[in-house]
Amino acid sequence: MERNFTLLTDFYELTMMQGYLKSGKHQERVIFDMFYRKNPCGNGFAICCGLEQVVEYIRNLNFSEEDIDYLRSLGTFDEDFIEYLRGFHFTGDIYAIPEGTVVFPKEPLIKVIAPVIEAQLVETAILNLVNHQSLIATKAYRVVHAAQGDGVMEFGLRRAQGPDAGIYGARAAVIAGCIGTSNVYAGQKFRVPVLGTHAHSWIMSFPTELEAFKAYARLYPNNCILLVDTYDTLKSGVKNAILCYDAMKEEGITLKRFGIRLDSGDLAYLSKKARKMLDEAGYPDAIISASNDLDENLIASLKAQGACITSWGVGTNLITSESQPSFGGVYKLAATYSDEGQWVPKIKLSENSEKITNPGNKQIYRIIEKDSGKVFADYIALEEERFSEAEDLVLFDPIDTWKKSTLKGGSYEMRPLLVPIFLGGKLVYNCPSVEEIKAHCKKEQESLWEECRRLTNPHAVHVDLSDKLYEMKKQLLTQYSRGE
Amino acid sequence: MERNFTLLTDFYELTMMQGYLKSGKHQERVIFDMFYRKNPCGNGFAICCGLEQVVEYIRNLNFSEEDIDYLRSLGTFDEDFIEYLRGFHFTGDIYAIPEGTVVFPKEPLIKVIAPVIEAQLVETAILNLVNHQSLIATKAYRVVHAAQGDGVMEFGLRRAQGPDAGIYGARAAVIAGCIGTSNVYAGQKFRVPVLGTHAHSWIMSFPTELEAFKAYARLYPNNCILLVDTYDTLKSGVKNAILCYDAMKEEGITLKRFGIRLDSGDLAYLSKKARKMLDEAGYPDAIISASNDLDENLIASLKAQGACITSWGVGTNLITSESQPSFGGVYKLAATYSDEGQWVPKIKLSENSEKITNPGNKQIYRIIEKDSGKVFADYIALEEERFSEAEDLVLFDPIDTWKKSTLKGGSYEMRPLLVPIFLGGKLVYNCPSVEEIKAHCKKEQESLWEECRRLTNPHAVHVDLSDKLYEMKKQLLTQYSRGE
Repeated sequence: MERNFTLLTDFYELTMMQGYLKSGKHQERVIFDMFYRKNPCGNGFAICCGLEQVVEYIRNLNFSEEDIDYLRSLGTFDEDFIEYLRGFHFTGDIYAIPEGTVVFPKEPLIKVIAPVIEAQLVETAILNLVNHQSLIATKAYRVVHAAQGDGVMEFGLRRAQGPDAGIYGARAAVIAGCIGTSNVYAGQKFRVPVLGTHAHSWIMSFPTELEAFKAYARLYPNNCILLVDTYDTLKSGVKNAILCYDAMKEEGITLKRFGIRLDSGDLAYLSKKARKMLDEAGYPDAIISASNDLDENLIASLKAQGACITSWGVGTNLITSESQPSFGGVYKLAATYSDEGQWVPKIKLSENSEKITNPGNKQIYRIIEKDSGKVFADYIALEEERFSEAEDLVLFDPIDTWKKSTLKGGSYEMRPLLVPIFLGGKLVYNCPSVEEIKAHCKKEQESLWEECRRLTNPHAVHVDLSDKLYEMKKQLLTQYSRGE
Repeated sequence: MERNFTLLTDFYELTMMQGYLKSGKHQERVIFDMFYRKNPCGNGFAICCGLEQVVEYIRNLNFSEEDIDYLRSLGTFDEDFIEYLRGFHFTGDIYAIPEGTVVFPKEPLIKVIAPVIEAQLVETAILNLVNHQSLIATKAYRVVHAAQGDGVMEFGLRRAQGPDAGIYGARAAVIAGCIGTSNVYAGQKFRVPVLGTHAHSWIMSFPTELEAFKAYARLYPNNCILLVDTYDTLKSGVKNAILCYDAMKEEGITLKRFGIRLDSGDLAYLSKKARKMLDEAGYPDAIISASNDLDENLIASLKAQGACITSWGVGTNLITSESQPSFGGVYKLAATYSDEGQWVPKIKLSENSEKITNPGNKQIYRIIEKDSGKVFADYIALEEERFSEAEDLVLFDPIDTWKKSTLKGGSYEMRPLLVPIFLGGKLVYNCPSVEEIKAHCKKEQESLWEECRRLTNPHAVHVDLSDKLYEMKKQLLTQYSRGE
């Protein structure tokens, strides 16, 4: 059963909505773009995520009687507005970039075209949902990339910022490449693998570590990863793990997937020593997994040190995106509709020119080089513009406009990224499953050059503007600077 | 209607539960302590928060048929265990420190006494709920403290890590001292003030800034805070705000609470210039509020620079606790029950001695000096110990045991912090309202010396152990180091 998040909005959205109604302009159509300005955590891109939850949110939008009573009790809203809210539902269009797609700064991830009173209401929840999951997906990509093909498990529920942060964070982490989550609720909701074995308390509730290990191995011979640091990792834990494997052999129990988990201490040193002990005892197949405040930097460092770890459990730093815990997506007015039936582009100025918005009704094209299959650039154009892949395409940097490159007709593909999700308030999009999004995300990651995927100082993918959009923007800037 | 979070748990809790059942020890009573090791964000204390949500969670604990079907589908659990889950409910005792109380490292905030199979299940959700809200309450305290009595509004929903992070984060922020939140859902759910006026899009949807201001002022004369940075803060925004106030006077509209909001640029400079313009125009009562990536350090710096701001909207950095986005609470086994009907203390060792746990069934006492009314120290003792305030109390540092201080009998009060919440699975506690918790939290903050409340290098409040608890711990450590 889905929650109704109609009131999951900032109070000012409601005061503005009443203002639009009172000013008689509430039915004027507008375009809002949801976009972000800077890739999180120093990454070379972001992974957009959270659209399915936006779809659920929009579909469930309606003010219950309880909501109405509450709003009335605030003393800010009058009965005309309350009456309007009673019949409220979303009637507009929403275009979005499908989840799992790699995206870049300043590109609209979501475009809302709707009467201003509706477009205003949905700002906060859209930002909340997309900011959160895009952040965690991007962070999870970094952790998974650092693990160089080893399995990474999402283990962060206990440190997540509330239940939803754990649940939707696990979803985003799996989409970006984690092999599973410890979060059973997320496993059930999204049909993704759930993983984990036992905690220190299991060991401590038995008289000895060895007895605890043996009891566990007998119960779970198919997935018997023993936590070895309750008392002393090498002197006690690994030694007892080996005794336990030996005992299982004697008892005729075959362990299928088995090994140890290191959860404290110097993971590089301990993993090498443990590897040697396990190999010498005849268990070269024993897996060494590790947890304990890991992130992409620690994993990369452990890899560089030759740590003998091939399985990673990552909790707190992934689920909170500890190195940067917010995504910074914004929702800005891009156009209003004139009485003459035309879009009037709107721009938000700022003393910081990086913060100036792109006006108008836009589409984004991903430009892919045919011979490499890799992304060359993204290209933002006006929705009305038409292009032919047979013609040459000249791209120029929107800041340093003298920097140009020309793609020969026939040598590139142009894929529009924004697809319709709602049209006239009606859902026209089938949300893919998490497994499907994960597969799409993998392909997306592979469409980038390794230089753009690396974790430190990645090469930036250019996001260029069409001539027409660039001219429109320049004209609006000139207009405002003349004080018009 | 409340959500059922029974599956909001780590998978390993379930595999361990089945293990306890299969080992025939699932009904053995144990004690788990939820505590944390280090105050977040360099603060001198934490504010514990989230208990009401733990109470809801425990009350709703039960495996639905859908949950049962899902768990069966995983192929890990057998029918005996599934059958056990079908009738599952919590039958144990829970003790906790009431929400809004200031707390210190290593103190059990929650103590669970229950059959091991039940105590194990609830670990993850308890940690999730208490870690999140205690983090945000502590961060919010810092921001509110920096504002030196000015009102601080919680504005972070759009950047929160999912809906719950926004909703429960707003709750925690208000408990710690914020005057309200922008989050309407939280306002409805917790009956706390909701606040806010308008966004840039309001301005941009009118032909001119002045028209947008006037339309707003006519609608909301009681709370007319105008956002002045859409085009140019001083040249356009503040100037138009003044013209708007003048126009309202002419129209005979009295503005009750009115002023401006700065949302970009150099807030110290702009606020001083704006203050001068407003004063010279005859509006000394106009409020200057500010937002834009604020946190406790920026607010303290603006205060030190003499910025003319008396109202603060704090978003991203508060709602995510940007400087440290996780709380680090853990849940550790403290005792098991012997066949002879006695608690057997348990200890978790670690190479890092700071991580060694406190064993046994404990109570925490807050020691308050009668003459100042301030907190002298906290004192952790065994539950069975009895004390008299008429007698002298000798406190010693649990690390440097030669550091001692003696409190004269009659000069201090001893307040037990852990109170019963559930006994035998039955709720025995009335959760206070958010307003009541907020009032309690204010008193709690005032019970600390200012040296402990300051934001940088605060003085640490000592948490000492009773002689009996200290001896028990020493004995267990000796026992383990001898390899028993």
